[in-house]
Amino acid sequence: MSLIYVLNGPNLNRLGLREPEIYGRTTLAEVEEMCRAAAPGEIAFHQSNREYELIEWIHEAIERGAAGIIINPAAFTFTSVAIMDALKMFPGPVIELHISNVHRREAVYHNSLISGVATAVIAGLGPEGYIAATEAMARLIARNSGR
Amino acid sequence: MSLIYVLNGPNLNRLGLREPEIYGRTTLAEVEEMCRAAAPGEIAFHQSNREYELIEWIHEAIERGAAGIIINPAAFTFTSVAIMDALKMFPGPVIELHISNVHRREAVYHNSLISGVATAVIAGLGPEGYIAATEAMARLIARNSGR
Amino acid sequence: MSLIYVLNGPNLNRLGLREPEIYGRTTLAEVEEMCRAAAPGEIAFHQSNREYELIEWIHEAIERGAAGIIINPAAFTFTSVAIMDALKMFPGPVIELHISNVHRREAVYHNSLISGVATAVIAGLGPEGYIAATEAMARLIARNSGR
Amino acid sequence: MSLIYVLNGPNLNRLGLREPEIYGRTTLAEVEEMCRAAAPGEIAFHQSNREYELIEWIHEAIERGAAGIIINPAAFTFTSVAIMDALKMFPGPVIELHISNVHRREAVYHNSLISGVATAVIAGLGPEGYIAATEAMARLIARNSGR
Amino acid sequence: MSLIYVLNGPNLNRLGLREPEIYGRTTLAEVEEMCRAAAPGEIAFHQSNREYELIEWIHEAIERGAAGIIINPAAFTFTSVAIMDALKMFPGPVIELHISNVHRREAVYHNSLISGVATAVIAGLGPEGYIAATEAMARLIARNSGR
Amino acid sequence: MSLIYVLNGPNLNRLGLREPEIYGRTTLAEVEEMCRAAAPGEIAFHQSNREYELIEWIHEAIERGAAGIIINPAAFTFTSVAIMDALKMFPGPVIELHISNVHRREAVYHNSLISGVATAVIAGLGPEGYIAATEAMARLIARNSGR
Amino acid sequence: MSLIYVLNGPNLNRLGLREPEIYGRTTLAEVEEMCRAAAPGEIAFHQSNREYELIEWIHEAIERGAAGIIINPAAFTFTSVAIMDALKMFPGPVIELHISNVHRREAVYHNSLISGVATAVIAGLGPEGYIAATEAMARLIARNSGR
Amino acid sequence: MSLIYVLNGPNLNRLGLREPEIYGRTTLAEVEEMCRAAAPGEIAFHQSNREYELIEWIHEAIERGAAGIIINPAAFTFTSVAIMDALKMFPGPVIELHISNVHRREAVYHNSLISGVATAVIAGLGPEGYIAATEAMARLIARNSGR
Amino acid sequence: MSLIYVLNGPNLNRLGLREPEIYGRTTLAEVEEMCRAAAPGEIAFHQSNREYELIEWIHEAIERGAAGIIINPAAFTFTSVAIMDALKMFPGPVIELHISNVHRREAVYHNSLISGVATAVIAGLGPEGYIAATEAMARLIARNSGR
Amino acid sequence: MSLIYVLNGPNLNRLGLREPEIYGRTTLAEVEEMCRAAAPGEIAFHQSNREYELIEWIHEAIERGAAGIIINPAAFTFTSVAIMDALKMFPGPVIELHISNVHRREAVYHNSLISGVATAVIAGLGPEGYIAATEAMARLIARNSGR
Amino acid sequence: MSLIYVLNGPNLNRLGLREPEIYGRTTLAEVEEMCRAAAPGEIAFHQSNREYELIEWIHEAIERGAAGIIINPAAFTFTSVAIMDALKMFPGPVIELHISNVHRREAVYHNSLISGVATAVIAGLGPEGYIAATEAMARLIARNSGR
Amino acid sequence: MSLIYVLNGPNLNRLGLREPEIYGRTTLAEVEEMCRAAAPGEIAFHQSNREYELIEWIHEAIERGAAGIIINPAAFTFTSVAIMDALKMFPGPVIELHISNVHRREAVYHNSLISGVATAVIAGLGPEGYIAATEAMARLIARNSGR
Repeated sequence: MSLIYVLNGPNLNRLGLREPEIYGRTTLAEVEEMCRAAAPGEIAFHQSNREYELIEWIHEAIERGAAGIIINPAAFTFTSVAIMDALKMFPGPVIELHISNVHRREAVYHNSLISGVATAVIAGLGPEGYIAATEAMARLIARNSGR
Repeated sequence: MSLIYVLNGPNLNRLGLREPEIYGRTTLAEVEEMCRAAAPGEIAFHQSNREYELIEWIHEAIERGAAGIIINPAAFTFTSVAIMDALKMFPGPVIELHISNVHRREAVYHNSLISGVATAVIAGLGPEGYIAATEAMARLIARNSGR
Repeated sequence: MSLIYVLNGPNLNRLGLREPEIYGRTTLAEVEEMCRAAAPGEIAFHQSNREYELIEWIHEAIERGAAGIIINPAAFTFTSVAIMDALKMFPGPVIELHISNVHRREAVYHNSLISGVATAVIAGLGPEGYIAATEAMARLIARNSGR
Repeated sequence: MSLIYVLNGPNLNRLGLREPEIYGRTTLAEVEEMCRAAAPGEIAFHQSNREYELIEWIHEAIERGAAGIIINPAAFTFTSVAIMDALKMFPGPVIELHISNVHRREAVYHNSLISGVATAVIAGLGPEGYIAATEAMARLIARNSGR
Repeated sequence: MSLIYVLNGPNLNRLGLREPEIYGRTTLAEVEEMCRAAAPGEIAFHQSNREYELIEWIHEAIERGAAGIIINPAAFTFTSVAIMDALKMFPGPVIELHISNVHRREAVYHNSLISGVATAVIAGLGPEGYIAATEAMARLIARNSGR
Repeated sequence: MSLIYVLNGPNLNRLGLREPEIYGRTTLAEVEEMCRAAAPGEIAFHQSNREYELIEWIHEAIERGAAGIIINPAAFTFTSVAIMDALKMFPGPVIELHISNVHRREAVYHNSLISGVATAVIAGLGPEGYIAATEAMARLIARNSGR
Repeated sequence: MSLIYVLNGPNLNRLGLREPEIYGRTTLAEVEEMCRAAAPGEIAFHQSNREYELIEWIHEAIERGAAGIIINPAAFTFTSVAIMDALKMFPGPVIELHISNVHRREAVYHNSLISGVATAVIAGLGPEGYIAATEAMARLIARNSGR
Repeated sequence: MSLIYVLNGPNLNRLGLREPEIYGRTTLAEVEEMCRAAAPGEIAFHQSNREYELIEWIHEAIERGAAGIIINPAAFTFTSVAIMDALKMFPGPVIELHISNVHRREAVYHNSLISGVATAVIAGLGPEGYIAATEAMARLIARNSGR
Repeated sequence: MSLIYVLNGPNLNRLGLREPEIYGRTTLAEVEEMCRAAAPGEIAFHQSNREYELIEWIHEAIERGAAGIIINPAAFTFTSVAIMDALKMFPGPVIELHISNVHRREAVYHNSLISGVATAVIAGLGPEGYIAATEAMARLIARNSGR
Repeated sequence: MSLIYVLNGPNLNRLGLREPEIYGRTTLAEVEEMCRAAAPGEIAFHQSNREYELIEWIHEAIERGAAGIIINPAAFTFTSVAIMDALKMFPGPVIELHISNVHRREAVYHNSLISGVATAVIAGLGPEGYIAATEAMARLIARNSGR
Repeated sequence: MSLIYVLNGPNLNRLGLREPEIYGRTTLAEVEEMCRAAAPGEIAFHQSNREYELIEWIHEAIERGAAGIIINPAAFTFTSVAIMDALKMFPGPVIELHISNVHRREAVYHNSLISGVATAVIAGLGPEGYIAATEAMARLIARNSGR
Repeated sequence: MSLIYVLNGPNLNRLGLREPEIYGRTTLAEVEEMCRAAAPGEIAFHQSNREYELIEWIHEAIERGAAGIIINPAAFTFTSVAIMDALKMFPGPVIELHISNVHRREAVYHNSLISGVATAVIAGLGPEGYIAATEAMARLIARNSGR
């Protein structure tokens, strides 16, 4: 049964509380439920405000032979070369996910360090983007294992 | 029953024939079938190498009260202010779709003119990205009409 | 009797329908009437979403010995080197016209390719800008023929 | 009866004497006559080489409830944030005017600080541009007061 | 009684020991005393070399209904989008504080990510800048509560 | 008794009248009162729309042996190398002051020429920023004379 | 017998009529004759002001198994990612041709999108450049088939 | 007898008093004496902190048929398009003079607006640069009148 | 006996496991052995994925009077102003070390924040670079203490 | 009989030995033969790794009244203003030649200093480019002498 | 026995005489001795102010089958594409060496053309850097030959 | 008796023959005469197209204790870091000289590498600039020796 990591970056622990006109009122616990419902196998779902925890969960995903990583790096998208380096080591598909359409926001949110090492990017679908990402990851894993 | 436009830009008529190491072997006719299978309602599916046809299909979508537009503008993503202007006039959700992860390609493919007027962006999922986009559009339409 | 071409670029067929808070409610047909009323001679008034039609109308203006060209290239202002090249071949005065003040809008609307080959530029006067452009063109033609 | 300020920046006191191949032989006194002839109401016509006088005439226009300002800031177009700030305080329409088509000249003349706070921009019509600006201002004032 | 958070970023635990020709000989403990003396109410004074602790203190300030935040993000000023995002969620006034005048230092210290989300910025007053910031915060809070 | 110059740049004579949503309703006369109340010694308080007057007041401050200069250069902040050069000649502390947080405004307000020659910068505290600046200047003067 | 496509972009239908001081007086029909005379095999010679016709002729060249493409994209050189994408799909040699030395002209003519996907570039030889390109293409084809 | 204008910009009234490690201890009155001693004819020597006075002295030089202008625009070198425009109108030789070698100073002193309209530039010779400039101007005038 | 700190940044705990075509198969434990073998005195050898631990080890090195620091900041090289600030406080020699030649990699790896505060930089020697760095550090320490 | 100079820059003495996947296996001696075979008249064929020899051969070409210069400046293309200056003095046609398509290589090979002073540019045809250049030069000379 | 070339660029013949506060007092002859002492085999040690000599020594190293090249290109580091091209042809390891830490010096010394073609870079170790480079080169050669 | 080096860069051996509309008809031999006539002491006057000769004459000037260097580096002004480095070693005054006003020419002539290490810069005075430079150098030497 395939294992998918869903990793969430800083401030996402406050999802649903924070700037609801941008992010909606869904909480991260509800998002976790969406992912579990949409995934064909196991989900390892984490959030941290600590860059090193995200790095080390990626290391763990490598160790445990996870099938794919969905990551919403939030602010670290634009500043963390260390997470980018960690993701480069992961052999399976990586989906970078953003709740809002970052391309419509201020310039500081435009240059993702992660997109260049991700397999795919999904942005702007709101919390439902997690459903889209999980379903898409399932298809990517199926396609890869079908080879 | 909601009507969704799926619009495809230049050279996509050769999908499946062209650079398969980047785009895979799925043809555009197969992609159209995927979209019809995934959509809850009617699909208006078009491809053109002509910028003006894309513009006029967007005008048509406005006139017919379409519920959403999924657009893979291909090369026009990076050069067509006219398509960008047409999409601004469309009142419903717009999903910008790319088969490959454009962020991993050459610099000329990095600055989308469309992302700033789209609701959401999906890139890098291969032809299956059309399924993800159609399902995500269905959710966006349901969410909007639920208000 | 002098002949003036008034050429309009993409999406202007939807003038009055589109983003009225920016462009107002005047339609392109009404604009054409304004031009005819303001012009001392014949007006050749055209709109197209097709770059090549604009190019070929400029060629036609050269062939017919038109006295001047007023052009609102809309989105092509910022992307069409081909229209710029065609205008360079026209020997008479060229007025570049914009309904809104493009300098107050987003950066993508700031670098006109046309201004460098136009005689004059008028922007921000709303649909009445066509009246100003037609009257100004009449004065330019009179001044030139007075030499 | 509506009052229009027509303000002229540095070196324009030498209009007609200076670089006639660019600016023609019309003097500023003749320009003033053109404006008075074209305006429906009162004209306050000024020229100064002093940035502060232009700022203070704009303050005066605010105090006197002027209906509009036509300003040819000449060299200050590109260097005076102070005039830009003063114009922001003026509640009515502002037309930025240039005798030559600044977009065809050297790069130092390309980045207007004023265009972003003006209602409209007219450039390249020669001294007759003052007639076009005055007539256009009359239409803007009429349109505004008609609301 | 209003509660003010005073947050200090990396390396500030060595204040007074470090580069005294730039930062002086006052220690952070002395700075804390200055703040307590200057504040009308409670002070929550913290320092950390850990980005996540700063983020989580900001979350705590939101939860506890703090009246204002004074933050000297030190090196994080220039690199932490995550702190910027956290501060955006805080509803009260935020003062960004720097001991030295960062504008006089090397280019890496010139582009603050924080200034765009802060209410006010104070830089260059030395350790006494904390007194100025605390007193100014008291005035901002008084002004806000006076509404 | 120490003498402090408080210098104000263009358009500040209209403070309280101008864009109150940014600058509030306090007038410059009221600001002058605030400064006199906060200062331990003499205040030389001036405003001018003329760059040269600001330059010459700085020369005067040097001649009279003033203890410090607080300057709100307004628009000249971004354009006056001459004021920057004059401030370089002043031997005492200089505080650059802005009523609004210039870092949150348009890009033209982001590159201060003055910050690189000032001792300290205060921005975004509203008219009360003059109180903060005066008190901070008093502390700077005390610290300097204490050496 | 090898088949060579010679494709010409916008405004080249007016060659010989247009700016003869830059392009000379040779017409496009004469150029076509030069190519036919210089080519060892069949020539498919086309001109269009329509981007899509150029794209579709490239598709046709792929379908017909053409041995090489000589393309003078004119203005599209600098704006058409779609033609660039189409040329990428063509397996044989591509020569980009310009009548004038584009490197000596204005900056807008300096950044070719096509050079990065062409085999070779020839510019500045005047209409005789078509002879050089055709002869060089014959040598490239011979060299390739000799392998 | 030829008339030479020697014009000096802001803060130069304090020459000899200001930053002597850069500018030396020679006063402007002594500089004026050097120029008179070195010049073959009449010298009109002026200094102002007012941009408009420099502009109007240039206008005066044109009116009086001066043979040449030596200008040390000081800070206005980098900010005054208006002085640049005025100098363009002067038909004779213009020498731009700087006491220090501006190329060795901070970046703000590197982009002269004046050099592009001057005949020659002399920088870094200290106050004696005025002697060099005056003697060089005499040679330029002699060479011109010798034609 | 001199004490040398050897500090290693994020993801280096996976050295030898990660991208061996770039970093080789030597593990960090083997690297530590190399350093101990090459060093004349004590080695404090650490790795962390946590920026703050690196900062605090630098503080510790200062406190313990270490003779030198060798740091391979990995991804933090390009993003950590905080580590840069900490290193500035260290009075002895600092060698920045990279296993690969970062100058041959993608642009994101080109702008080191650390090089400007390091004594020396060594890159591209593979794991043996640690030997080179340790031996070079010994020579630097000897040279310094020889003074 | 017309004399053509064919000049070759640094490292081209190793042509055929060096990076054959880019430059092929043809040697410079073979290239010289190709040129002699293709030229209607005399060929002065030279190679040097010394910038000054190339400069002085251009001077010699001027002195001897050569009809044209074909130059493959190799690395000097991107760095030698001195060769650019020398070529400006040559009155006849100049063809800049590159064996590879420099536009497809790294950025350092993209900005030719020579193209702006050459008559024509040929790149990417391999060693056969020398044949194309020689034949094209013959046509340019014939066209010029036919005037 | 392996042969190592040690090449030194312009002005290094004056090492020890020149700017000793940056480069120390060691002469180039002493540096040569250090290299010979540190090398396991033959050293070919050269210095030249002539770019072409450096190029031709690299050619010679290729011809003689040298095992490695250590190059301190001095000023040519930043300007010589020709030396970069020559080094590309060398099949063995290349170490770029700088006596000072170029990253701490002025911007003109920051963009090495050589680093992108070197195996490794060593900078800032003073003249002892030659020892480090020679020892590191010996290890690189041993590692390569051990494969 | 003071010794002055006057050094001239590439292509200046053709002065008077080359582009006389820019450089006039004076030859370099005549220039040498001018320098000798203007100098109070010995002149070492040289020209070379070889960068290394210029470098080595600068070394020679240092060895011989020359009092000053006047250098017209011509094209090397913009490309030679090596000459810049050599001049840094010269302890006396250096005057950078250009015959034309390089600031009025194309962009490639705008960024002098030499100005940042020269004492003074003189440009645009024509061949007579050598007289001005020689006389100014005499004054600089006198002033220095007077200390």
